[in-house]
Amino acid sequence: MPSVVVAGASGYAGALAAALIQRHPRFDLAAVTSRSDVGARLSDLYPYHRVHMDLEELDVDRHGQADAAIVAYPHGAAAPVVAELRERDVRVVDLSADFRLRLLDVYEHWYVPHPHPELMSDAVYGLPELRRAQIEGADIVANPGCYPTATLLALAPIAPWLQDVVVDAKSGISGAGRAPTAKTHFVAADENVTPYGVAGHRHAPEIDQELAMLGAPITTTFVPHLMPLDQGELVSCYCTLREPVDVDALYARAYAREPFVELTDQPPGVRDVRDTNYCRIHARFDERTQKAFVFAAIDNLWKGASSQAVQNLNLMFGYDETVGLL
Amino acid sequence: MPSVVVAGASGYAGALAAALIQRHPRFDLAAVTSRSDVGARLSDLYPYHRVHMDLEELDVDRHGQADAAIVAYPHGAAAPVVAELRERDVRVVDLSADFRLRLLDVYEHWYVPHPHPELMSDAVYGLPELRRAQIEGADIVANPGCYPTATLLALAPIAPWLQDVVVDAKSGISGAGRAPTAKTHFVAADENVTPYGVAGHRHAPEIDQELAMLGAPITTTFVPHLMPLDQGELVSCYCTLREPVDVDALYARAYAREPFVELTDQPPGVRDVRDTNYCRIHARFDERTQKAFVFAAIDNLWKGASSQAVQNLNLMFGYDETVGLL
Amino acid sequence: MPSVVVAGASGYAGALAAALIQRHPRFDLAAVTSRSDVGARLSDLYPYHRVHMDLEELDVDRHGQADAAIVAYPHGAAAPVVAELRERDVRVVDLSADFRLRLLDVYEHWYVPHPHPELMSDAVYGLPELRRAQIEGADIVANPGCYPTATLLALAPIAPWLQDVVVDAKSGISGAGRAPTAKTHFVAADENVTPYGVAGHRHAPEIDQELAMLGAPITTTFVPHLMPLDQGELVSCYCTLREPVDVDALYARAYAREPFVELTDQPPGVRDVRDTNYCRIHARFDERTQKAFVFAAIDNLWKGASSQAVQNLNLMFGYDETVGLL
Amino acid sequence: MPSVVVAGASGYAGALAAALIQRHPRFDLAAVTSRSDVGARLSDLYPYHRVHMDLEELDVDRHGQADAAIVAYPHGAAAPVVAELRERDVRVVDLSADFRLRLLDVYEHWYVPHPHPELMSDAVYGLPELRRAQIEGADIVANPGCYPTATLLALAPIAPWLQDVVVDAKSGISGAGRAPTAKTHFVAADENVTPYGVAGHRHAPEIDQELAMLGAPITTTFVPHLMPLDQGELVSCYCTLREPVDVDALYARAYAREPFVELTDQPPGVRDVRDTNYCRIHARFDERTQKAFVFAAIDNLWKGASSQAVQNLNLMFGYDETVGLL
Repeated sequence: MPSVVVAGASGYAGALAAALIQRHPRFDLAAVTSRSDVGARLSDLYPYHRVHMDLEELDVDRHGQADAAIVAYPHGAAAPVVAELRERDVRVVDLSADFRLRLLDVYEHWYVPHPHPELMSDAVYGLPELRRAQIEGADIVANPGCYPTATLLALAPIAPWLQDVVVDAKSGISGAGRAPTAKTHFVAADENVTPYGVAGHRHAPEIDQELAMLGAPITTTFVPHLMPLDQGELVSCYCTLREPVDVDALYARAYAREPFVELTDQPPGVRDVRDTNYCRIHARFDERTQKAFVFAAIDNLWKGASSQAVQNLNLMFGYDETVGLL
Repeated sequence: MPSVVVAGASGYAGALAAALIQRHPRFDLAAVTSRSDVGARLSDLYPYHRVHMDLEELDVDRHGQADAAIVAYPHGAAAPVVAELRERDVRVVDLSADFRLRLLDVYEHWYVPHPHPELMSDAVYGLPELRRAQIEGADIVANPGCYPTATLLALAPIAPWLQDVVVDAKSGISGAGRAPTAKTHFVAADENVTPYGVAGHRHAPEIDQELAMLGAPITTTFVPHLMPLDQGELVSCYCTLREPVDVDALYARAYAREPFVELTDQPPGVRDVRDTNYCRIHARFDERTQKAFVFAAIDNLWKGASSQAVQNLNLMFGYDETVGLL
Repeated sequence: MPSVVVAGASGYAGALAAALIQRHPRFDLAAVTSRSDVGARLSDLYPYHRVHMDLEELDVDRHGQADAAIVAYPHGAAAPVVAELRERDVRVVDLSADFRLRLLDVYEHWYVPHPHPELMSDAVYGLPELRRAQIEGADIVANPGCYPTATLLALAPIAPWLQDVVVDAKSGISGAGRAPTAKTHFVAADENVTPYGVAGHRHAPEIDQELAMLGAPITTTFVPHLMPLDQGELVSCYCTLREPVDVDALYARAYAREPFVELTDQPPGVRDVRDTNYCRIHARFDERTQKAFVFAAIDNLWKGASSQAVQNLNLMFGYDETVGLL
Repeated sequence: MPSVVVAGASGYAGALAAALIQRHPRFDLAAVTSRSDVGARLSDLYPYHRVHMDLEELDVDRHGQADAAIVAYPHGAAAPVVAELRERDVRVVDLSADFRLRLLDVYEHWYVPHPHPELMSDAVYGLPELRRAQIEGADIVANPGCYPTATLLALAPIAPWLQDVVVDAKSGISGAGRAPTAKTHFVAADENVTPYGVAGHRHAPEIDQELAMLGAPITTTFVPHLMPLDQGELVSCYCTLREPVDVDALYARAYAREPFVELTDQPPGVRDVRDTNYCRIHARFDERTQKAFVFAAIDNLWKGASSQAVQNLNLMFGYDETVGLL
């Protein structure tokens, strides 16, 4: 059975990835590593994941013997780890932003100087519903951001007709990460709703890049909001189209055979996808405003990060992509 | 001191209105009435309001002797009560939708046959920041809906330049009313976010009507969402303008002297206006998308209903509009 | 593969039981029935369970052909269904209180006249950690109440030394059931904590009955509280002992080989057992007060109801009791 | 009008104290000080308090000219500030534990070496319902801890009959303070309930000290729990009495004329006292267990800290104790 290392398993996404690999019937969890919590038992940090393994320091000599790795490092810090693992021929799903953007200058405008630009073209953008075939053969899969995941699944079927789109996104607090901050303090987040990143969020260029590839060369209006819940993400998309289209038919056709996309008659609630790899989508054409409304719900830590990473790994290793995820 | 009756005090908005009048230094709370809970003590239904009065059946002979009334009935049921009270010369703030829309056919399209269309032209739309002078002389004030309150305060300063606007609104569960339903069940609402009214929400024509009067004859794209919190409402407005404007200057000028509007450097959280009559607004021009982004937060039960009713009453009786509300 | 009917699948516990059987590798979900929602698709009521079956009216001729049934009816209504199913030789796990109490008069004091007292002695109290052997051979298993489950697991190891115990219990709102009521309204439950059943809760005699069988013939002080969360239950037990005992050793010995009991060094949080069949227990002797403190956390819908029912079914059908539950 | 300085106004309790003094009709808020946030505007830290003053460094020469101070420093750090302010004859309400305990060794066992033991005997324990007369003449009032406040109000009427008591306490997350920690992170606290301080909480000796003075020389069993809400505290007290007493009569007599104690027929919810100085109490004798059950709800930041401080200040300055608090 292929062995998988999770590098950076002390954060929310890494810890969940470790739990998903541990319970996966066709991968072995070889090791979990951490920069901040070496020596701690992962199940002491996250009792509910029940991964009773000690967090190790990353050692590429040893961990590089694994067949695959899920890397859950912050942007900028991920690329060097990916590079080292690739030298040992480890196949990598990277949860950071380091390999999502195709253009170096776009990456460096929104993030930091790229530590390994030479690897950028090796990476495949890991949204299986759009890039299944490429992912199967990839050695570096750039796992999409949570907002781009939901937004692109919401918009792909009508992308060729998109003239303008407003994406109002709502995320649970786990999206802000495990570090305790003034914003993630319970008293600050509870009974509150707050827009953030209004001056420009890094997921916007990622959305624009992929929309362009789908035939919509537009500048997305994208504003995320923090919601008082732990896991869950909803994107509400208000789309101006170049011409009226049969929204129902387009979505039905696009997603008829997708195992993880659920089309609904009513707007989805994030609760309905909690702790799953599903994306639930409701799309409709609104006669009153002549716009298409599309709402997509995912679990930001699952389909928005860790379970999508496993879905990608499944594809990379030739498995049915649902293995270990239903 | 003028006496005030609160008719329909067993709902959230009516009960809060009663509490606000009870603690108001210049109004007397004469009576609280209810259709569903006659005989119950209001403080048994809402211990935290501490209004130790029994709910009475509405008796226009008796209650019509009050100087003013806040009517918190459902639409369609409110108008007959308002009519009866007006016959006794009681000045009324009506929390329902019955007198908000100017055009009978618009009202009847979105609501029900109007029981008293002859009174429609007597009513003033009670958004003090926009109609202060008219409210002062009015005998029927139609208290705005919660979403129109936040949206109109958000958009008024740039209305003349509005070409198109998407309003993504988020509200706490108290906005769904006191009736226990599948939607308001804790287990359904907790850890959830759900769009609703996507096929058309009754507050949309109200917003359009008032925007038109402010110089923006547009069809607003408006979709509300339920959020897992009790009180609070945020409207996120994405505005396409006819031409670039100095957003900062327009808002500063419009609201410099408004006692209940707070302009902020950062996007507001609903927590910051909880249990107050304030509307907190952050407006900015976004260079990337060439749109104006405006975020406005209110407490849906306060500025979105009951405290705004008191603000209106203050104006109607010649008081400083902040009396009893700071 | 044995087939299982879930009777009463429209409530929280029944719906979850159906989901657990559906994903169980060694049971077939034969049918889901309901009294209130016949014809509805279970996945429309509970999208997150993804049980795409229609709710049927219970038909004992047809459903009596199943090998087993999980009955999730209210007390009083469950016994007649159990009786009918037993006539067809269906093996039953009953989630109601109808077969939990051994003494008819105790049952009838706390509940209603018993419809089938003749079956009471056939039933086994289905707490696997205490009655594994009996459950294996039983045809009627009375699934314990959620509070007794947590309390008995918390107290069993020290029961012979118990002189007096105060059990302060805390439960999420799902424990109050699916019916929308004033108490389960989000606005009532949110940001609130309330004791209830203080005049006597029906789980107290159930706890006392089982504690007596474990060697503690005492009257438990038991008071539950509602907490603003959906799933989860914590019992905090303050125990006066007849003599000092080695608490650590007793718990270690009692639970060393239990697959679903986790002993912890620190007090457990309910979050750590959410959506699992685990019971997490922290026990300590407090020198200051000379009492034993025991804290036990379960998910009230899982170990407190539906997953425990599956654990029981596993035992009844000779499977490893963890099948389908890890 | 007497001027009041709030020293340590950047924490939750200090900030609320500042807000309460600012809106108080008979005190002037002279200054707000902070150790961590000097120069920041208090309304930037806590927009909802709307105290538009800059936080200053404490300067006893200047701030010592105030008539009174509310000191909201951590234990150990408070006593030196109180000492300096007393040298300038400033009357002080101290929110820390530094002057609550009468016995130096008890203080130093549970806290730190006391910086100013010579002042301990000057301080009055500031629970107005029990020590009104002494508070009126005091120059140092030691504001009680939040748990002791609720517990002592719950138990005072039956203290002379108390033989043993279990106090199971539940608090909202604001009780853990403003510092972002792993425990106060939204994701850790949300949908969770956790006991803490089970090895001994510092409020236990404070409770015992005061119960002894009320005639109950006992060792209280006291365990607090964290609840997923922001403000609010409930203590559930299970009392073994020396002999049966008329619980109803004792509580009615004790609290008949207390402006901030509400006796209720049903167990109180913390929501009913949110943002108030009220303590809501339900007491009953339980025939089944022969124990008295008493439940008391307060807002931990208000009656449990800041509004009680204002109640104390009112008494110290000869005002009606309800001024500014209704």
